[in-house]
Amino acid sequence: MNEKTARPMAGVFSPVVTPFTANYGPDTGRFVRHCRWLLSQNVGLAVFGTNSEANSLSGDERMALLETLVDAGVDPARLMPGTGCCALTETVRLSRHAAGLGCGGVLMLPPFYYKGVSDEGLFRNFSEVIERVGDPRLKIYLYHIPPVAQVGISRSLIERLLKAYPNSIAGIKDSGGDWEYTKSVIQTFQGTGFDVFAGSEAILLETMRAGGAGCISATANVNPGPIHRLFATWTEADAEAQQKALVATRAEFQKFPMIAALKQAIAHWSDDPSWSTVRPPLVELTDGQKADLVANLNALGFQMPGLA
Amino acid sequence: MNEKTARPMAGVFSPVVTPFTANYGPDTGRFVRHCRWLLSQNVGLAVFGTNSEANSLSGDERMALLETLVDAGVDPARLMPGTGCCALTETVRLSRHAAGLGCGGVLMLPPFYYKGVSDEGLFRNFSEVIERVGDPRLKIYLYHIPPVAQVGISRSLIERLLKAYPNSIAGIKDSGGDWEYTKSVIQTFQGTGFDVFAGSEAILLETMRAGGAGCISATANVNPGPIHRLFATWTEADAEAQQKALVATRAEFQKFPMIAALKQAIAHWSDDPSWSTVRPPLVELTDGQKADLVANLNALGFQMPGLA
Repeated sequence: MNEKTARPMAGVFSPVVTPFTANYGPDTGRFVRHCRWLLSQNVGLAVFGTNSEANSLSGDERMALLETLVDAGVDPARLMPGTGCCALTETVRLSRHAAGLGCGGVLMLPPFYYKGVSDEGLFRNFSEVIERVGDPRLKIYLYHIPPVAQVGISRSLIERLLKAYPNSIAGIKDSGGDWEYTKSVIQTFQGTGFDVFAGSEAILLETMRAGGAGCISATANVNPGPIHRLFATWTEADAEAQQKALVATRAEFQKFPMIAALKQAIAHWSDDPSWSTVRPPLVELTDGQKADLVANLNALGFQMPGLA
Repeated sequence: MNEKTARPMAGVFSPVVTPFTANYGPDTGRFVRHCRWLLSQNVGLAVFGTNSEANSLSGDERMALLETLVDAGVDPARLMPGTGCCALTETVRLSRHAAGLGCGGVLMLPPFYYKGVSDEGLFRNFSEVIERVGDPRLKIYLYHIPPVAQVGISRSLIERLLKAYPNSIAGIKDSGGDWEYTKSVIQTFQGTGFDVFAGSEAILLETMRAGGAGCISATANVNPGPIHRLFATWTEADAEAQQKALVATRAEFQKFPMIAALKQAIAHWSDDPSWSTVRPPLVELTDGQKADLVANLNALGFQMPGLA
């Protein structure tokens, strides 16, 4: 394999949910334990993603949590922290910090406050980040999630960035919910070393068949083993059946606000109610929702083996 | 007048555009000069608003600029800095800083990354901010701008916040573009000391007639004198004519990306090209747009008297 096809980050990643204390402070002990459990299930750590409530954390809080993980012995090569903020200077600060710690990659939202911005403006943003960080270890996975960020990443922007910064632009997480777009991005950049991660395991099999690199999915927080198994065995006979089972489990979480539901499942299966806390502006599930989620998942035979 | 009708911030405010150096750094000298010019035109300083590119500034950059203004002798009572961020802890940090400097108010966006959040979640957010800042000098003007933030401020949320924190919840800037909503908010909270600022001078006369407190408008950066004049003389015979002229001037800016157009007008009328710089992800006007803007404004007899 040459450098351009090595795919150092290929696989399944979880946008790790961030546990909070009753006072909404980051709960470092539970955070490290959850990360270790995910790694034990062969799932990498896309900490500070949308489902991590990362946008409800300050830059200082994110950097402190990242240092906690590295200090706890987590391999930085398995880390893909979110570092994209509204402010150029804050994105630079977080990206420099992540690259300096040796993180395998960073997942970078475009600046998302101003709407209807041009590709030229977005190119300048990413270009400034790369130039200012000035660290060849910085590997950027662009984060395309128009349903939330409202500002997306176009194919022509990717093309221009890849041409200007082939060493820094490593791939994309596509949470656009439009399989045709995902497929077109995989096809367009095939062979360039630009890795495409599906934003959901619901299309993991399709993504792997099309030549993608894996997925980065909310529900990898709660169902990591089976999702990794499909990634590892997608060419085998039972792949379609595996995919179907993953979709069924995911569907139970999608019936509720996702982040609160993920945390509630962890709270229930680890018998640790404090996990259900979310930071404002999110709210936890109601008691009725909590009971329904657990009952529905039990009916599927859902488990979280090895969860502390 | 009792405390509840004193309206300490009534009037016209400008979301002050932030000048940048060629390297996209905040240009403190030009910033202070522009703020002084606005004050000389009787316009208050809503620094770090949408049109300030505030969401492209880090928290540290905002705090440094605010301190620069206060150190330069700007009366903090005339300052209404934007302090609402996605992250609760960052909003607390900026709001505590602004209140500590004695700012007359703060303009607070709701957390705007997560979409479709509940009023309960937003209430918890503002409640936590108020409790954590814990400073009776904190006067919050809620910032309702759904076309950009996508997360708005409902009447029932205002009602609940006002009831819980009558000393801290001071008013709203309504940039929703829906006059019926603006009017309903003015009417609902009449007499409670909750001040409603229109988000545009295009509805300043209507706002004053309905009982509003003034406006906070992008174009107050370039047309402050005439906008303030309507605020000060809205009961006079020529008010309709004044309003019409304000709308005509504003319309010329609305033909272009607003922030770049505001900066270009300042660059042109102060003969200082460096003012045209915007920070990514925004881009400056093209040469053709620059020429069109100036020609159109000249045709209206537009001037910026006293601009350095």
